Amino acid sequence: MIKKFARDELPELLGQLTRWQLSADKSAIQRSFKFADFNEAFGFMTRVAIKAQEMDHHPDWSNAYNKVDITLSTHAAKGLTERDIKLATFIDSITPAA
Amino acid sequence: MIKKFARDELPELLGQLTRWQLSADKSAIQRSFKFADFNEAFGFMTRVAIKAQEMDHHPDWSNAYNKVDITLSTHAAKGLTERDIKLATFIDSITPAA
Repeated sequence: MIKKFARDELPELLGQLTRWQLSADKSAIQRSFKFADFNEAFGFMTRVAIKAQEMDHHPDWSNAYNKVDITLSTHAAKGLTERDIKLATFIDSITPAA
Repeated sequence: MIKKFARDELPELLGQLTRWQLSADKSAIQRSFKFADFNEAFGFMTRVAIKAQEMDHHPDWSNAYNKVDITLSTHAAKGLTERDIKLATFIDSITPAA
């Protein structure tokens, strides 16, 4: 099973993911996105979906018109793992800098 | 502006949407879906997204792996309109009977 990160490992790992927020229980990271319209929001979601399927690691997410909220966590490990960092890094790479 | 349905119109309109639940404040309808896997869930979402864009009427929804929760409401009318009924009917038409 994939190993979850220890709490003292998190600050360094999340140091590069400055646009993500650590959940209160430190088991997940979250980021909200706002796009021009639904077309752009769902296009973004489709790119993330294809990557998620490739990684076999899927986001918990919601969408309302041009807004997308994403939560990443590794349920099997009950916490954050390298898979979450990898998927978050990919997501950052396809979104414009805030 | 599109007219929202009066409360006394709702029972008849929702009579055909037996798999949808009316929200407590009667301003929205909700349905939860469970699919075989993420591929099937996101494929379903993509079909709904294309229809939603065609109708210019978009769902509020969330997804976690094989689960999808959809809420339909017409924000501009602050309640349910014929657009919600039409989109819900389309969604029912592409999902297997429960």
